[in-house]
Amino acid sequence: MSERILDFLRRRDADGPCVVVDLDIVRDNYETFAKALPDTSVYYAVKANPDPAILNLLESLGSSFDCASVGEIEMVLATGADAARISYGNTIKKERDIARAYQLGVRLFAVDCVEEVEKIARVAAGSKVFCRVLCDGVGAEWPLSRKFGCDPAMAPDVLEFAHQNGLTAHGVSFHVGSQQANLGAWDLALAMAAGVFQEMALRGIELKMVNMGGGFPTRYLKDVPGVPSYGEAIFGSLTKHFGNRLPSTIIEPGRGMVGNAGLIEAEVVLISKKSAEDEVRWVYLDIGKFHGLAETMDEAIRYPIRTPRDGDVTAPCVLAGPTCDSVDVMYEKTPYELPVSLSIGDKVLIEACGAYTTTYSSVGFNGFAPLASFVI
Amino acid sequence: MSERILDFLRRRDADGPCVVVDLDIVRDNYETFAKALPDTSVYYAVKANPDPAILNLLESLGSSFDCASVGEIEMVLATGADAARISYGNTIKKERDIARAYQLGVRLFAVDCVEEVEKIARVAAGSKVFCRVLCDGVGAEWPLSRKFGCDPAMAPDVLEFAHQNGLTAHGVSFHVGSQQANLGAWDLALAMAAGVFQEMALRGIELKMVNMGGGFPTRYLKDVPGVPSYGEAIFGSLTKHFGNRLPSTIIEPGRGMVGNAGLIEAEVVLISKKSAEDEVRWVYLDIGKFHGLAETMDEAIRYPIRTPRDGDVTAPCVLAGPTCDSVDVMYEKTPYELPVSLSIGDKVLIEACGAYTTTYSSVGFNGFAPLASFVI
Repeated sequence: MSERILDFLRRRDADGPCVVVDLDIVRDNYETFAKALPDTSVYYAVKANPDPAILNLLESLGSSFDCASVGEIEMVLATGADAARISYGNTIKKERDIARAYQLGVRLFAVDCVEEVEKIARVAAGSKVFCRVLCDGVGAEWPLSRKFGCDPAMAPDVLEFAHQNGLTAHGVSFHVGSQQANLGAWDLALAMAAGVFQEMALRGIELKMVNMGGGFPTRYLKDVPGVPSYGEAIFGSLTKHFGNRLPSTIIEPGRGMVGNAGLIEAEVVLISKKSAEDEVRWVYLDIGKFHGLAETMDEAIRYPIRTPRDGDVTAPCVLAGPTCDSVDVMYEKTPYELPVSLSIGDKVLIEACGAYTTTYSSVGFNGFAPLASFVI
Repeated sequence: MSERILDFLRRRDADGPCVVVDLDIVRDNYETFAKALPDTSVYYAVKANPDPAILNLLESLGSSFDCASVGEIEMVLATGADAARISYGNTIKKERDIARAYQLGVRLFAVDCVEEVEKIARVAAGSKVFCRVLCDGVGAEWPLSRKFGCDPAMAPDVLEFAHQNGLTAHGVSFHVGSQQANLGAWDLALAMAAGVFQEMALRGIELKMVNMGGGFPTRYLKDVPGVPSYGEAIFGSLTKHFGNRLPSTIIEPGRGMVGNAGLIEAEVVLISKKSAEDEVRWVYLDIGKFHGLAETMDEAIRYPIRTPRDGDVTAPCVLAGPTCDSVDVMYEKTPYELPVSLSIGDKVLIEACGAYTTTYSSVGFNGFAPLASFVI
């Protein structure tokens, strides 16, 4: 728990929930990634938290950036970073957005089908493309759908098509699933990537880069392996599958870079029961799914919560947000243990909220303001 | 399909998706409710779409307003409406927000437990309260959780507690579930409400009002009963359960008031397959779960979609949004039939998008702007 954040919160007296991110922790995280994977370029996944102070810090540390849109590309360029440090990593791009990115200097694009290659060939000639391949995501707390990437068997055709259309077939990307705690997931994915490299070599095209995506976990309630363990496992798998012809590599940490750097302070608005016989209390906070805690969807992410009554006897409760929307319930299938003495008006601290909170917030559902954010 | 909206869209040339709401349709909807339930007060559920032009129109038509927060109360007062036309319908309120609402003139509050009554008694003395009771929501496309309301057996205690603490125990509220197509749901709920009235009478307290909530459906792909059928069924149930001592009644349409008045225009960004063998295409739009179509969550609401190729042969496709988030997939379990000839760059029209789109939009996830909104 960051003393700097606690100190900031002690001095704040505005109403409403807020998230506070500690830049010292972001710096530590960046350095941990850089040390664990010294030959790998770090492309921060801007979507996790695009706060300008975070982008400025990472720019100064030498990070590169994975962007989902022209909007994010512009945010990164505003830090003074050169466009060569940007990857336009979204496989779904309008042709005019590709053209705008190209005009801004971006030369590295993600694809997963020939239709996307066609757009890039038309408006971003000579750029490098990497093909995202599907990966099953076993072991991830937030396994990915089939939305991004193609079957590994189709990737060589996509890359060869790029090569034939004036682009550089640069490499392969995958994503093992968010909050991935299974170190073996990278091994399977790297074996698949090596297979694509071999097939391309047979076709006379030399790929150069493997983008290993994100998925590095933040510690929520359950313990997760540390970044050094990931570095070791990944380096071992690279050597195993690529031998002494190691490709250049990229990682795209988002949650792993900022997740544990942020803390949300919220207030208990109401504690009640639905009937005299109910065992389980309902605890309503002034923040919920629509104002920052969207990742509690399907109870996927279980945030650690501190209360001023910690240490007292606990009992299970359903945790819900403040809106008039019945889906705005965070933990119900698996109730959350909180102190019996918890009271209306208490402030609670929700840990590991630096990623995927501010931008997931709605613009103003139910008339509540978007999540306030401070980066210190 | 509103000709006024189509005409507006023809003249628009900005990039990006937008929703356009036709005020003529909102006016028709208000008048249909007023006619179907002539003795019932209409409290528009502001959260469905708080656009000032919609609020101004409804104010001029004589509507009252159901508000979820002080923010929404302020929006309604900005139309010039008297605070007597406002219900603070959220059962989860900070005590200081109740105090602010009271200072603004609001005198009608929802509760579902004694803890909430205590707050109101402290800072809004003399106000009227109604107790929300749980209702099982069978037949609703978007059944409600147990988040709001108490067991009907507990309601008399909550209301008696209010009476003993200087508040007026005014009535009972329920919500049969959103997009409720089963007319019988209101009958069950009204029977339960009548039971609470009887129990309160035995305790010497006369309740006066039944708030029948929302749940009136919008026509998406499936047909739904028209508002006059609801009016008839509800009036029949009121007479059946309350005899010749009919309570005053309130309805809170949100979706039913604005849902069918809005249309989203979006663009096809990419159409691709994941492998050469796949039967199902993926169609990616420039709008998804994070920028207005949140109600496709769990594929709950199935929007009608028009394309410029309608009439051509169709085939199933997975429909997804433009963000780098793998949950941003709208229809996958039940693929959506769209014309085989649909092409990248085509504009599509998503119908019945006037409710729960603009405010559900994220502030800027993935660097995409919030949903643009026009009310004409």
